[in-house]
Amino acid sequence: MKTIRNTDVIFSFKPKMDPIERVKPGEVLKFVTNDCFYGQLTSEMQSLEELDYSKVNPATGPVYIEGAEDGDLLKVKILSIQIDSAGMGLTMAGQGILSHNADNTLPKVLPIENGHCLFNDIAIPIDPMIGVIGVAPSDEDGECPTAVPWKHGGNMDTSDIREGSTLYFPVKQEGALLALGDLHAVMGDGEVCFAGCEIAGEVILQVDLIKNATATWPLVETHEATMIIASGNTLEEATIEATEQAVGYLNRGLDISWEEAYILASLIMDLKFSQVVNSEKTVRSAIPKYILPTETLLKTL
Amino acid sequence: MKTIRNTDVIFSFKPKMDPIERVKPGEVLKFVTNDCFYGQLTSEMQSLEELDYSKVNPATGPVYIEGAEDGDLLKVKILSIQIDSAGMGLTMAGQGILSHNADNTLPKVLPIENGHCLFNDIAIPIDPMIGVIGVAPSDEDGECPTAVPWKHGGNMDTSDIREGSTLYFPVKQEGALLALGDLHAVMGDGEVCFAGCEIAGEVILQVDLIKNATATWPLVETHEATMIIASGNTLEEATIEATEQAVGYLNRGLDISWEEAYILASLIMDLKFSQVVNSEKTVRSAIPKYILPTETLLKTL
Repeated sequence: MKTIRNTDVIFSFKPKMDPIERVKPGEVLKFVTNDCFYGQLTSEMQSLEELDYSKVNPATGPVYIEGAEDGDLLKVKILSIQIDSAGMGLTMAGQGILSHNADNTLPKVLPIENGHCLFNDIAIPIDPMIGVIGVAPSDEDGECPTAVPWKHGGNMDTSDIREGSTLYFPVKQEGALLALGDLHAVMGDGEVCFAGCEIAGEVILQVDLIKNATATWPLVETHEATMIIASGNTLEEATIEATEQAVGYLNRGLDISWEEAYILASLIMDLKFSQVVNSEKTVRSAIPKYILPTETLLKTL
Repeated sequence: MKTIRNTDVIFSFKPKMDPIERVKPGEVLKFVTNDCFYGQLTSEMQSLEELDYSKVNPATGPVYIEGAEDGDLLKVKILSIQIDSAGMGLTMAGQGILSHNADNTLPKVLPIENGHCLFNDIAIPIDPMIGVIGVAPSDEDGECPTAVPWKHGGNMDTSDIREGSTLYFPVKQEGALLALGDLHAVMGDGEVCFAGCEIAGEVILQVDLIKNATATWPLVETHEATMIIASGNTLEEATIEATEQAVGYLNRGLDISWEEAYILASLIMDLKFSQVVNSEKTVRSAIPKYILPTETLLKTL
């Protein structure tokens, strides 16, 4: 198994990037990741003013997948996520959905013990997830800093991107160029104060290709559902986009009229918050697999 | 057990209303409810232009709860929801989150058989919920049509308002004046096309009072969490309000600083879509009971 070291990182997903490793479809590989502060923040006594903000949200990679071309889907199955022994939560002045009330900055060390994240005397069960994961964007979308979520993936902060889930990314550049980082030991849907339990770790995943199957946004497949992960300037924009995509999949995948698909979506499709705190907001729409299996959905692309 | 008939309905929650029944705290009662069309729509062949739109979203009631006063919380435990043998889904031109694409109107009959809602050849497991439930609003808020969600409750379209859940409403008027209707046999979070499986039925519930405990928005308690149900002109506004309330409860209920409460909310509090299709949007924030038991939360009000 090839290992991608956490010293090989990017801070932007760019259309053109130099890969640091090459793998074949079907191959299993390990990414070692930094926390979102690139290891710069380790103590509650530290001033956050001393951090180098050009070095936040590092993503390990990028990795070139042989045979991947514009018009394919890159399939990424998350086999395991291992996290470090301590994470960091924090609020920063003027950040998060309550930015108008957030006057102070506070970093908080969060030890991980026996499967729990310790917050004072509260033991929170961990539920590790990947905050940043994506591929090289289209020429049209251009350079996307790793702090941003968009059609290439990026900082989607989606709790369903966890062990056992499978991601599907629209490939826009030769080799796809996969990179990831920004693990969270645990995070509530919305990530309201703008950070989860930020932590370093290791992700083992398997890459594969689905030829000639494109998509507008990344998808994540869980045990129960296929979800479209859409982002927008506002929650309304992201919600409209996620819904429009889901209704389109139901329309084509079940061979029913658009109106029937819209009614059906209203009955069985859950909208879910991913995050409300990045420059672009992220929402996912979940189509249950008993309604439309992922395989059928992917054929409608 | 007193039964409130579905011929006794309101189309607005008003500060002053004539109760059609009086009950004591602790009493169990049954509400018979109409569907949201007041039984006017029964066939797919019907033109929706013939409906009397002054008669949509009827809420059965209102019921006077003895001893309820401004400054109390009305506790409503939903003991059972029974639904009719057929519901109605529909899309209407220009409605829902995809209003820009919704050019046509289509009613769709949805039979209920063996615990499933039948949509063509798809059997959707039912999950009955109450769309409209509320009390008399404050004098300040004034008359609220039953189509609207606000601080008094109303058209919250929240899937967690189901059998086994307990609601808490801020009482603003003598007797509280509880009314409800607009059941859905099943509805996805968001209710994207603007209707669930609209259906008539019967709700059995138990009312109680918590004296001298107020709240800004209705709360719903499930097995796992206490949720604040907030509405706003936009999803952003509803999200800010739901988060601000949750952080306040964590701040006071756990006796931690506001900053710590904000960080903690980001780790353990899920934001959830209720509905995105009424004139005001509705979002709920879920505080897990293992973090803050409902009883403790209510004491911080």
